[in-house]
Amino acid sequence: MTTRPAPAPDPVTSEGAGPGAPTAPPGAERLLRHLLDRGVDTCFTNPGTSEMHFVAALDRVAGMRSVLCLFEGVATGAADGYGRMAEQPAACLLHLGPGLGNGLANLHNARRAHTPLLCLVGDHARAHRPLDAPLTSDIEGLARPVSTLVVSPQDPAQLLAAADAALEAASGPPSGVATMIVPADLSWDPLPDLPPADPTPWRAPAPNPEPPPTTTGPEGAAAALRSGRPTAVLVGGRAARGRPLRQLAALAAAFGAKLLCETFPARLERGAGVPPVERLAYLAELAELQLQGLEHLVLVDAPVPVSFFAYPGRSSLLAPPGCQLHRLAGPADDAQSAVDALVELLGGTQASAPAAGAERPGAPNGALDPRSMAQAVGATLPEAAVVVDEGNTLGLHVPEATAGCPPHDWLTLTGGAIGMGLPLATGAALAVPDRPVLCLEADGSSLYTVQALWTQAREGLDVTTVLLDNRAYGILNFELRRVGAGEPGPVANALLSLADPPVDHVGLARSLGVPATTAHDAQELADALARAFAEPGPHLVHCPLPPVL
Amino acid sequence: MTTRPAPAPDPVTSEGAGPGAPTAPPGAERLLRHLLDRGVDTCFTNPGTSEMHFVAALDRVAGMRSVLCLFEGVATGAADGYGRMAEQPAACLLHLGPGLGNGLANLHNARRAHTPLLCLVGDHARAHRPLDAPLTSDIEGLARPVSTLVVSPQDPAQLLAAADAALEAASGPPSGVATMIVPADLSWDPLPDLPPADPTPWRAPAPNPEPPPTTTGPEGAAAALRSGRPTAVLVGGRAARGRPLRQLAALAAAFGAKLLCETFPARLERGAGVPPVERLAYLAELAELQLQGLEHLVLVDAPVPVSFFAYPGRSSLLAPPGCQLHRLAGPADDAQSAVDALVELLGGTQASAPAAGAERPGAPNGALDPRSMAQAVGATLPEAAVVVDEGNTLGLHVPEATAGCPPHDWLTLTGGAIGMGLPLATGAALAVPDRPVLCLEADGSSLYTVQALWTQAREGLDVTTVLLDNRAYGILNFELRRVGAGEPGPVANALLSLADPPVDHVGLARSLGVPATTAHDAQELADALARAFAEPGPHLVHCPLPPVL
Repeated sequence: MTTRPAPAPDPVTSEGAGPGAPTAPPGAERLLRHLLDRGVDTCFTNPGTSEMHFVAALDRVAGMRSVLCLFEGVATGAADGYGRMAEQPAACLLHLGPGLGNGLANLHNARRAHTPLLCLVGDHARAHRPLDAPLTSDIEGLARPVSTLVVSPQDPAQLLAAADAALEAASGPPSGVATMIVPADLSWDPLPDLPPADPTPWRAPAPNPEPPPTTTGPEGAAAALRSGRPTAVLVGGRAARGRPLRQLAALAAAFGAKLLCETFPARLERGAGVPPVERLAYLAELAELQLQGLEHLVLVDAPVPVSFFAYPGRSSLLAPPGCQLHRLAGPADDAQSAVDALVELLGGTQASAPAAGAERPGAPNGALDPRSMAQAVGATLPEAAVVVDEGNTLGLHVPEATAGCPPHDWLTLTGGAIGMGLPLATGAALAVPDRPVLCLEADGSSLYTVQALWTQAREGLDVTTVLLDNRAYGILNFELRRVGAGEPGPVANALLSLADPPVDHVGLARSLGVPATTAHDAQELADALARAFAEPGPHLVHCPLPPVL
Repeated sequence: MTTRPAPAPDPVTSEGAGPGAPTAPPGAERLLRHLLDRGVDTCFTNPGTSEMHFVAALDRVAGMRSVLCLFEGVATGAADGYGRMAEQPAACLLHLGPGLGNGLANLHNARRAHTPLLCLVGDHARAHRPLDAPLTSDIEGLARPVSTLVVSPQDPAQLLAAADAALEAASGPPSGVATMIVPADLSWDPLPDLPPADPTPWRAPAPNPEPPPTTTGPEGAAAALRSGRPTAVLVGGRAARGRPLRQLAALAAAFGAKLLCETFPARLERGAGVPPVERLAYLAELAELQLQGLEHLVLVDAPVPVSFFAYPGRSSLLAPPGCQLHRLAGPADDAQSAVDALVELLGGTQASAPAAGAERPGAPNGALDPRSMAQAVGATLPEAAVVVDEGNTLGLHVPEATAGCPPHDWLTLTGGAIGMGLPLATGAALAVPDRPVLCLEADGSSLYTVQALWTQAREGLDVTTVLLDNRAYGILNFELRRVGAGEPGPVANALLSLADPPVDHVGLARSLGVPATTAHDAQELADALARAFAEPGPHLVHCPLPPVL
């Protein structure tokens, strides 16, 4: 992705107003114009006092869509969803260290998704910070673990340069979360035109993958595909959609290689007419089966496959011992150019890419279970949908049931930080307002950031949430058995149960302004989905399901 | 506070089982026993896979009350409330960096409150961490800004020693948040008895207040009180209750000094028979008036008074220029001994401490507004109540209306990180189950951590929440005008309004299992409060109020 080039000087301040002239607008207003000029026109926010000058400037500068969120984790998750779909950064505007703290989990997911995202955090005025007032904290320390760059201008001349540095880092490659910390007095002081000064940002060190790939670049990948030995191409990031996906699918078909996708892609294109890709399983033992026997694995914007968690007595590395790893492109590379180079080396694509056939399940009936629920989704998913998947254990069958649906995008839990679904759907709906958004949301996960429903109602977003309710942390019931901790007793089981008291998900959604209904069987679910997709605005369909275990 | 001394060696592993013997229980179980032996018997948690061995151990080791929270900010806020009331640490158990991230805002408040709190964070197994799996992050980097100590045992021999170091740091002085990061394999590996090894924790540097006090210790404070010049005693921390409060109130009365309390005390004792203390106002201009003319200010476990935020053209320091600051005790000192030494220097306390008279407002009637709401609270507050105050602008009149109520404790927003009220009330109710808890909660603030209501229902806690609903971020409407950003326009105003859509707070509470009702006038509120206080279990009374501005 690119951001717009720097525009001509801002006419508000360039008409002869010297430094300190009373006509210079405050820094917050200059910053707002600067961001708009560079194409950042959406801001998800839960502001506080240190951000009030930015909020006030919104009435003087037209063009920024500011979206209020009741909780910062909604703002950051929405900015992630927006960035994944718009392929350019939205801003989120947060209040000091605690506001950033509340947003960190979804910034972690955005970091893993390499989502372009500009995170603005207001700080105390420079002179106020050393006084250690109650809200003072180490904002930069909190920001670093999720950021590709952290910049904290300390001088008015650094303000707009810092924004440029942050936007450049957010846009990449590698794209990612760039955090800009803005002292309140830089926001409120008039900002005349000044020669820009270097804001000396902190930059995240480049990750040092372990194990390192055997080869990097197109030659190694080409040799692997030509080897005639068992080979797979593992796509991720920007290679999981668009032209690179089609080119790689064609190559894999031509050379008899397997085509796989990383377990949790930021955005996977799929459906009728799109090359079908098998995602690497979450369960290490299943992923090992998918990779069994491979001698070469070509990584295209996907990390070396490792298990999500470690388990006693198991290796975390999923590829078989001796399998050679070839990195065609990583997040810092131009994935399209790397794929083009590979195609060139292999003499062009002779074969055309395979494509999934158009077929979808018929309308289901009978009791609701994960399979009939998936069938209802497959029967109704509209054209060009964006599917946000935080269905966890309960959503297991939905990918299969939707494989032949009209083409759609699939957004997943890239960083494993629960509470991403409702916020991500909110941001995606704002990024592509002409596309329907389906959010598959597990009950436990929904309750981390349920406040997102209010923003969906406020903004009238076309999001349909399927609330998958087994009244338990199903994934943990599962993991508790897998980590070898023995058969769980009543205390452990109670800690993973959400049945006492049961949450009234319909009442909860309605209390936040979203129309909601319970589907009592599979046909009711399909009917409710069809209605929700047909009507504008957000809807929630509550789907009681038996527990997986 | 103190923690219990180290007990005799654990009989489970000391009966001749050598290192690696199959009878040694896993590290998580040893850790759990170790914490229980040292008096930590309550754990607020939202666990994940890396904590499953700890969860499983709960069935093998009796005595730990584990309280499930739907969101980590509830767990940390509840641990803060528990620690403030129990004066010993509860644990919270969180899942990796994102779980800690979600808990940071309320850990920030706990840090400011100097609450003893043990924050346990599960991490990936040691061998898994370098692989940079999706949930990997810099947990220690996230923990430092809120912690007095961070310890991350990397060797089985360090596990229990790390717990001791963390508990010692949590207990203080100064008491605070101590974070222990536990690799999953140290939890699951059998842990035999080993000579303890040094876990080399990171310790927060001592804060370096600016401006520094003029004098420290009892002599300077004694000279100030004896000077005959305008003097005030500013209490905070552990000096805002119990014997130190009474001693200081008596001294202040004897020497004609003013008695003040820090703006946001962790726990202030007040009510009939307790020395009345004027809290320093949140608004800088009002606080300056309270301090006007003072030549000496004696600080007793209270920070140098500074404004909450900075404002254009205003000083952040609240004491008048030239006022001498005398620190009798800080958080790292034994406040009781320091006060005893001051009393001794001043020849003992001749005067008895003044005491608030027993008087409470009559039952109100008429329309609900902040004043009649306060009157209803004052008319009904039960004996020995714990009041958790996140009422913000709407709660302005409640302190005055309750000044003569039966003795009670008042817990405030120490760190300014919004979303503390409902969680803090949850933890306080568990710490002192024989005392009624009243939570004054503003509508906007409630929506950060509303999931706490579910835990209140699940645990049957005796918490009465008064949900003060003006459908706006009232404090920000106020601050927007105060920061000199000009009269807000429609965009700015909309960003501070919660009216569209209106949140159905009664429906929201009920959906999470808490009985709720709306009070339509002041008498209905008083009646609803009386009923809620009389009945066991949680209740929420929704109180629609006109906006302050």
